[in-house]
Parts: sequence; C-alpha cells; structure tokens
Amino acid sequence: MRPDDAPSALPALSSLSVLPAGLPAELPDPVREALLAPLVDHHCHGVRRDELVRAQFEPLITESGAPAPPGATHFDTPLGAAIRRWCAPVLDLDPHAPAAVYLARRSELGPAEVNRRLLGAAGIAAFLVDTGADAGNGGAESLSAAELGRLGGAVTGEIVRIERIEEEVAGAASSGVSYISDLETELAARLSRAAGLTSVVAHRCGLDLDPARPSRGSVIAAANRRLADPKERLTDPVLLRHLLWTAVDAARERNLPLQFHTGRGGPGSDPHRADPALLAGLVRALQPVGVPVVLLRCYPFHRQAAHLAAAFPHVYVDAGLALPATAAGSAAAVAELLEVAPFHKLLFGSGARGVAETCHLGALYHRRALAGILAERLAAGEWSVPDAARVAHMIGSGNARRVYRL
Amino acid sequence: MRPDDAPSALPALSSLSVLPAGLPAELPDPVREALLAPLVDHHCHGVRRDELVRAQFEPLITESGAPAPPGATHFDTPLGAAIRRWCAPVLDLDPHAPAAVYLARRSELGPAEVNRRLLGAAGIAAFLVDTGADAGNGGAESLSAAELGRLGGAVTGEIVRIERIEEEVAGAASSGVSYISDLETELAARLSRAAGLTSVVAHRCGLDLDPARPSRGSVIAAANRRLADPKERLTDPVLLRHLLWTAVDAARERNLPLQFHTGRGGPGSDPHRADPALLAGLVRALQPVGVPVVLLRCYPFHRQAAHLAAAFPHVYVDAGLALPATAAGSAAAVAELLEVAPFHKLLFGSGARGVAETCHLGALYHRRALAGILAERLAAGEWSVPDAARVAHMIGSGNARRVYRL
Amino acid sequence: MRPDDAPSALPALSSLSVLPAGLPAELPDPVREALLAPLVDHHCHGVRRDELVRAQFEPLITESGAPAPPGATHFDTPLGAAIRRWCAPVLDLDPHAPAAVYLARRSELGPAEVNRRLLGAAGIAAFLVDTGADAGNGGAESLSAAELGRLGGAVTGEIVRIERIEEEVAGAASSGVSYISDLETELAARLSRAAGLTSVVAHRCGLDLDPARPSRGSVIAAANRRLADPKERLTDPVLLRHLLWTAVDAARERNLPLQFHTGRGGPGSDPHRADPALLAGLVRALQPVGVPVVLLRCYPFHRQAAHLAAAFPHVYVDAGLALPATAAGSAAAVAELLEVAPFHKLLFGSGARGVAETCHLGALYHRRALAGILAERLAAGEWSVPDAARVAHMIGSGNARRVYRL
Repeated sequence: MRPDDAPSALPALSSLSVLPAGLPAELPDPVREALLAPLVDHHCHGVRRDELVRAQFEPLITESGAPAPPGATHFDTPLGAAIRRWCAPVLDLDPHAPAAVYLARRSELGPAEVNRRLLGAAGIAAFLVDTGADAGNGGAESLSAAELGRLGGAVTGEIVRIERIEEEVAGAASSGVSYISDLETELAARLSRAAGLTSVVAHRCGLDLDPARPSRGSVIAAANRRLADPKERLTDPVLLRHLLWTAVDAARERNLPLQFHTGRGGPGSDPHRADPALLAGLVRALQPVGVPVVLLRCYPFHRQAAHLAAAFPHVYVDAGLALPATAAGSAAAVAELLEVAPFHKLLFGSGARGVAETCHLGALYHRRALAGILAERLAAGEWSVPDAARVAHMIGSGNARRVYRL
Repeated sequence: MRPDDAPSALPALSSLSVLPAGLPAELPDPVREALLAPLVDHHCHGVRRDELVRAQFEPLITESGAPAPPGATHFDTPLGAAIRRWCAPVLDLDPHAPAAVYLARRSELGPAEVNRRLLGAAGIAAFLVDTGADAGNGGAESLSAAELGRLGGAVTGEIVRIERIEEEVAGAASSGVSYISDLETELAARLSRAAGLTSVVAHRCGLDLDPARPSRGSVIAAANRRLADPKERLTDPVLLRHLLWTAVDAARERNLPLQFHTGRGGPGSDPHRADPALLAGLVRALQPVGVPVVLLRCYPFHRQAAHLAAAFPHVYVDAGLALPATAAGSAAAVAELLEVAPFHKLLFGSGARGVAETCHLGALYHRRALAGILAERLAAGEWSVPDAARVAHMIGSGNARRVYRL
Repeated sequence: MRPDDAPSALPALSSLSVLPAGLPAELPDPVREALLAPLVDHHCHGVRRDELVRAQFEPLITESGAPAPPGATHFDTPLGAAIRRWCAPVLDLDPHAPAAVYLARRSELGPAEVNRRLLGAAGIAAFLVDTGADAGNGGAESLSAAELGRLGGAVTGEIVRIERIEEEVAGAASSGVSYISDLETELAARLSRAAGLTSVVAHRCGLDLDPARPSRGSVIAAANRRLADPKERLTDPVLLRHLLWTAVDAARERNLPLQFHTGRGGPGSDPHRADPALLAGLVRALQPVGVPVVLLRCYPFHRQAAHLAAAFPHVYVDAGLALPATAAGSAAAVAELLEVAPFHKLLFGSGARGVAETCHLGALYHRRALAGILAERLAAGEWSVPDAARVAHMIGSGNARRVYRL
C-alpha cells in the first residue's frame, strides 16, 4: 500500500460510480446495495495503455495468445461476446455492437479515455496489482498500479510476483551463495511497501511439487547451474521451492498473504499440474507458519480450491480471471465456489489482464453471478435478506480488507 | 443388523413423522409422497451426546476441525446458514435465528432433547452406523448406533470400519503371522452382526494404490514393523491393501457391501488422492469377486463416481456428507450424480458426523435437491410422474434395502 | 468422403426432415431455425442392424456392457428413460412407454425400419463414421457408413480408427522393420478417401503418455515383441506413440484432423488417465505441425477439454456420447463446454454407438440443451438473436464443415 493512498483513504461507498449493468429486479434493496458497493479487487494485472489494432487486441482476449484460426475470430468467445454486450455501451455504442465497430470506437476515443471509462465504471475502490506479468505482457505498454488507480478512481497496492524478483536476482547474483542472500534481501525490500505476494509456480513446474524446504546445499548447486543462464525462465523445482519458502519467510515477517495462480493457464502450462488440490501438502506445511494462502482463479478446479478453503483455516479463494473468461456462464463457477467455501474465505478478484475490458467485466460478472445466486437463495427461503447482503459485502470487500489488512 | 431390530421390523412408511421442510408446490402427489417416505440412511456416524459450548460446536460443523479465523465464524458457511434456517425451527426458534440464540436454545433444551428432535424429524427409518470414527471424534461422547436408532425412531445396523478393527488387532497381535490370522478372525467376528464394511484408505494412503493383493511375505514383514509401534495411525500401503483384501474375503463370505470414503476429507487428507476414479483398478479386480462396492460422498469427484457406477455392475454411490456440507447448493451435486449414474445405483446417506444437525440436514437436502430435479424433469416433459416417484423411492430406500439386504 | 457423396452433394437445409421434439416456446424464429437445421455429425459409430432381444439390447445402452444387477434394468438410467420418452413416439408409441412395450414394438417393426425412422428423424445431413469399433461391437452386425447414410438420408465420410489399422498391420507384418513401413503405407492408403482419423489411446495406455516421437530403434524392438502375439490388444506405449506420430504425419499430408476419444470409457479403461488435460504436452508438440486435434466426449473432464480448445488454436471439442448418456441432464455439460470454449471450436457429434437410439438422442439433446442455454442467454440480455442463431449454426454444422473441409 503506497503511503499516499493508504487504506484509511478508501473512498466512502456512496461516492463511487457504479456499474450500469442491471441486476435481477427481484433483489431486495439491502442486497442490491451490497452488490453495488465498491469492490476491493485483490488481484489484477496492469492493462495495455497503447492503442491496439485488431490483430493486437484479439490475442489479448484469449488464453492462447495466438490469432484465431482462419475464418474465425476471438470475438466468438464468451469474453468476446461480453465485450460487445457490456463494454460497448460504456463507449456509447449499442449493446452487441459488431466487433469492427467496437474496435473503431475504441480507436476513436483513444486508449486513455477507454481505460478511464471502463475502469471507472467497474465500481472498484481498491486495486491490488500484480505487476510481475508486465514483462511477458507488453512491458512498458502496461499501466502502472498508480495509473490504474488514477484512471479507476481507486487506491492501489502492489502484489509482488516472486518469480519476477527471482529473475532480477538471478540476473545479478555472482554465486549460488549470494543468490540466496540476494533473494532474501530483495524480497524484504520489495515487500516493505507491498500488500501481498503472488506465485506462478503452477505454470512453471506444477503444483505437484515436494512441499519440503530444500536443503541449502541443493539450492546452492541448483543456483550455480541457473547463474550460467539467468535469462532462462525458471522451471527448476528446487529453486522454485526455495523461492517459495524464502517468500514464506518474508511474508510471515510482514504478515502478508501469499497468492498462488492455479487452474487455467496459457498454452505453456500443463493444466492437470495446476490443480490447487495438489497444493494440499504445502498448505499443510504452511498452516503452523501463519501465512494466509490465497488460491487464484482455480477454474476448472475451483471446487477443489473451495474445499481447501473449508478444510484449512488459512486458505482463501477467488474466481479471478474465470469471471470475464466465462462471462455469461460465470454464475456456475461462482455457485460452485459457494457450495462449500466458507463465506469469510471468498474474495473478489478480477484477474484483469491485457485490456481494461477484463477488469470491467470481472467486476460486472462478479456482481451479476452473485446477484443471481443470492436471488435464488432468497427465493428458496434458504437465506435471510440481511444474511445475503452480509455475504455480498464480505466477498466484495470485507474479506479482502481483513486478509490484506487494508 | 441387531437381532432385536431386524430388517423385517422396519416401521410402515406412513407411521413415521416427516420433515416439516416445504417441497416445491408444483410436485404431483405421488412424487411428493415418495420424497417424504422414510429413508434408509446407509451411512452415518455417531453424533455427540454431550452438551457443546460454541467453541466445541463450531469445529464440528466444518471440515477443518479448527476454529474459524479471528473475526470469522463457521456459521458463515453453507452448513452454518442451513442450521440457522432449518434446524432452528425444530428447536422452536424462528428461521435464520442468530447463531448465539441457536446455541443458547440448544443448551436450554439439552443434548438429549435436541438429538431426539433433530433425528426424529429427519424422517429416517433405518440408520446404518459407521462406528469407527468415534475414537477420533469424541469417542465415548458419541451416541451408539442403538441410541441413535432409539432417538431417531429407527432401526439400526452397524457398518464396520476396517481400519478400526486393524488398530485393535495391531494393538494385541504378538507377531506378523498372528496379525494376519487375528485380523481374519476379528473381522469375521465383527461382521457376524454387521450390515456392511467401510474403509477410509482414501485418507490414509490414497486411492491410487496398487490394486493387487500383497504377498504374504510382504505383509508379514510390514506387520512386524507395525507391531513395533501399533498406536501409530496405519498408513503403510502394503498393510492397507492387505486389510482391504482380507475385508473383501470376509465381505464375500457374508455377502456384505464394502464402502469406500472418497472425495473431501479433513486437513490431513490429500484431496487429489481421494478421487474415486483412482479406484478403477481395484473395482475391476473386485468385479469377479461379487462384493458390492459403495462409493461414499465423492464430492467434488462425484461425476467420476457416477461414471464408475455406470461402468461397473457392482458399484454404488451416494452424496453423503456433501448434502449437509453444500446445503443450499446441494442440488447441483445431486443433479450431477443423476447425469450418468443408473437410478438403481444411487443411495441416500447423510454421512452425519459430529452433531445431529448434519443428519437432519442430510435428509432434508436429499429431499429438497431431488424434489427440485424431479420437478424440472417433469416440467421439461422428460420423465413421467410414476417414473419420478419410482426413482425417488429407489434412491431413498429401495436400493439400500436391496444392496444391504435389509 | 466417398466420391459419390461428395461434400458438394450436401442436401439443402430445408429439404431434410427435422426432429419432432419440442424446443422452448420462447425461442425467436431465427434461433429455432438454426437449431432445427440439419447437423453434421462429425463422429459416430455404426449401429446394430440385427434384431435385438432385451438381453442384447440392454448392455448396448450402458457403459458397462454387462447386464444390470439382479432386480434392476438398464432402462433405469438417463439414457433408458430418454429412449422411452423420445424414441417411443418415433415408433408410434406413447411417450414413456414401458421398456417391454418399446422392445416389442421394436421387434414388430424390424431393425431396418427402426433404424430408418430413428436415423431419419435425427435431422442429420452428414455422418462421419468411425468404423473401427465394429470388431469389438458386433462386427458384421453393424451398419456400414454407406448404409447409415442411406437410412439417415445423409451423406457420409469415414473416420479411420488408427488402432484398427495397426491391428491389421501387426497381423500381417513379417518383421519390426516392415511393421513400420507397412503402417505408413496402410495409413496412407486408408486416408486417401477418409474425412479424418481417430484414436482410442486414452483407453489403451492413457493420455499421460510421453508426447515425444519414439526412436526408430525402440519401435523396432517393441514391434518385434508385438509380432510374437499380434492378436493381443495393443497397449504398449512405445508402439501407441509411434502409431500416433505416424498418423500425425499422414494426417498432415492430407490436411485431416486427428480425433482423440477422451473421458468416460468402458470398464476396461482407467478414467483418471483419460482426462484430456493430460494431452497438453502432445497438443503443444502438434501445434507447429498444423494438424487439428479434436477431443471427443471428454465428459466428465469436458471443462478441461474446453480449456484446451481456448488455449490452443488447433484444438476442437465435442460432447459426443455424453449427450445421449446424460440425456435429460445434458444441458449442464453443454453449458460447461460453452463456459470457455470459443464458439468456433465446438462441434456436434452424437458419438452414436450400438443402437440407433443413441444417434437420435444425441441430435435431440444437442438441440434441446443448446436451445435451453440460448434461451437463457437471450433472456438475460447477454447475446443478441443473430448471435445466438449464428452460434447454433456454427456448432451444429459450420465448424465441422470448416474443420473437415466438407
């Protein structure tokens, strides 16, 4: 959390603009108000700040990062359809505007105005920004956390991606021994102003890793091998485990949560090795340490993640980028999270990435999906109105404020 | 099945009290009657008989067994909300009573009356009780099977937990050789009055075990190691496989089904090793033996379990403790079981554990979830009214009466 | 694609009979028309042409292939109930006709008339027929692709099952060296008139295979072992990988897609090894090759398959036999495929097998499930009417015409 936008500076709920998107008409007022209240987005990435032609925009709204097959378009996806439906009106177009019209209007307004509109209308009071994806995602072309907050009318905090820190350390360390101490020093320095840490180990060597802290000897040996080619993407399980445990030590020191990207990844990731259930051993090892573990996205293994959140007092879970990715179908995954996860363990995160549309739609589908589920619970006589409103508040912002001590 | 409450003594359906919980108004009478008919609960555990203060009650309604994080409560879970909604009225409170009010009323009435009310109103005609969890779950504080039946107005049978038998044998055996014969003798003795067997191997060494019967030599060697420290929880795969095969022999002798706990477990269990799909090899090996295999709970891998029930003539499946755990969201898992499982392969089990609320809610959500699905099938013109009623009867009691020969 | 029923000969949409099955009343006309338009069934098997008594019919409508347990019937399954509901009227019976009545009427009409009615009323314009299952599935008793097309009023193409080709080659090859060249020659010959290839490696050695092409030396050694007993079902991973890569070379040559059976299999298959997520490594290796990969059935791992279709430009997916198998519950799986799969990556396949009822119901539940989802998307204001109609056309036939170049 940056000094100049400290938690105490969170704007009052009523002062924020809210989503224009309609919620079910039958929702009682307290539930509707709870759903429309500003959210804390506990995990998003920077989004592109530059103008994007269609060939650049399309790969940013898909998991493949590649162009669509000949004769097809990435607008023919749940996310693409949602952009045309919900983001078009934010740019003054009719709902369901054709993709070409949408992109032309996007160019006409320019990226700064587009980002300002989409982020501002998301109804988010605080962004915790994972800045580690920038290198692979356009680098200098992404908005910084501060810019994201300014455009979105929100306070911001930084989530430090530990694999990014490791890359910097590996690029500068002179020996396996100094690699170890440099990593500790650098992590401590970076965490002094951070809101949390995040790891993409799921997409590097898989979550089926040995949960034990590796021996110092094995780390030094592996680090010496790594320093021979420090530009390589780190996939060595010994160094990744060492990185995790070093991060755990640093997180404990500052009482910060440690996030794990899990579930769906890009084409370089093995999906069956990103199942959060595989983390059970490490989660068990971390329980006595007292560092909160936050499982991100998780889809399509979100039920397993919800189970871990129920079985361990220190585990939290979000739907993340699965919200904009599943779009019109997002209610199913959110409902499945709510099957067994304690309500005090669920967080809102947009997982936003690439373009501001993902952030806008993450917030929109969080509200729409939860609204539908709460309406159903109320109609079935399962929950009371105050309970439904309270659950919406907890998931939307209350839990994140507690876990990240905002 | 105890002599004095033999299967023939099952009360007539119409003589039992039924759940007060409303079912969908649009259900035709025969379907409603089938849903409200007394259930056979083919797998539950004893529940606590002593008075419970809040710090004792809360861990009993969660998978973690631990207190909720500071500032949170386990009443903020699907199960907790369901207790306040559905159990409160059974204790003469308004629906959605605050947790503190609920627990105060619980104390006021005293545990015997609370258990009598909750179990009695569950509409269950027979309990098959897995008594093996007592040691880890309060031991002497749990109701015996006979008490459970008396309070619930139901007949009872015992499900023998084989890992519990093994512990007794390991504590008394004098050598690896006598361990083998003692196990056979003890299992035979315990099964003489039992309705079935159950195993928690999923939570000991995982279901990804070698399905082959281990050699006698390897068993003797492993048993000798075990006898050196017989108080240890058994996790040795060789001895667990030996235990399973000894149990299979004993089950075949008496024509009894063998249950497997699968899916969600406590914090000590690795969820990805409790996927019932991993049992396919053992299931195949057991097919010629003729022992019915019953997969318990299974959530969140219940679709895999339903597949096994469809692919093998001797495999059965229930939703078990997932019913009260998913509570207001339970219809999804029940619907998923019904996607491919033959209707003659689904059983009702509450999986009740810890407190009588889990039993009451297991029965309630079984009926509510199934009611919703049947109403949908009827509205879509998919099933006829007699078919829907027949399926409700089969799952509620008919299949269990056939499989357990009640 | 046979010369005499070339793609250009596809009948005009309006000239085909359509399903009598009602679709939701609230569907706008363009969406209803798109749903009722003739389908391309990109993967089905032959169905039995002979008269079937009940003891023969029942195992054909279940995954187990075995009789139902004593006192039970395979008509008490989702598929069995759907046959009584939807196929009975096609045979002039009332909906929900009893199983015995249905089978008596089936005999009365005779298999040719039954197949003609069920296939003809399926509203399918083209069948791509996997002929490789015949040997294990009744052999000479199954309709050929040409007969299927004639009875169904559709054009046909052949999908070559590569494991079947390998069996023929192994039965005739004189040495490990000639096995390799014979396989290449035979595949090339068979593909000259085929529409695609299909593999059942998931049910032979599992999809968790080493994705690398095996060395020539290791293939020759394994082939020499295999030739000693060529009647054995091939399960050797080296030879299966070699077969896959030989098939990939042949597919690339002719620009044909390669299908993989994934998900649910019979009792001989290990379900956890048939998860399409396990294919990620091979899918990655095939990306630069340019051969489209089509994941069949996938259930209950269809969300993982949909993810691969989103993460890789060359991956496609269908629900296949899961449509008739889940029947009244099929909307859930189809909705889950639509959560993340690009609309240009979803195909209709009935996966039909054993009896013509599976083909009829595959088409029927494809339309009913998709109709329900589209109605929901429209009611929620998520998609426009033209978009919904377009998606229905793409999945129903457009994507298959593009991928298989029909």
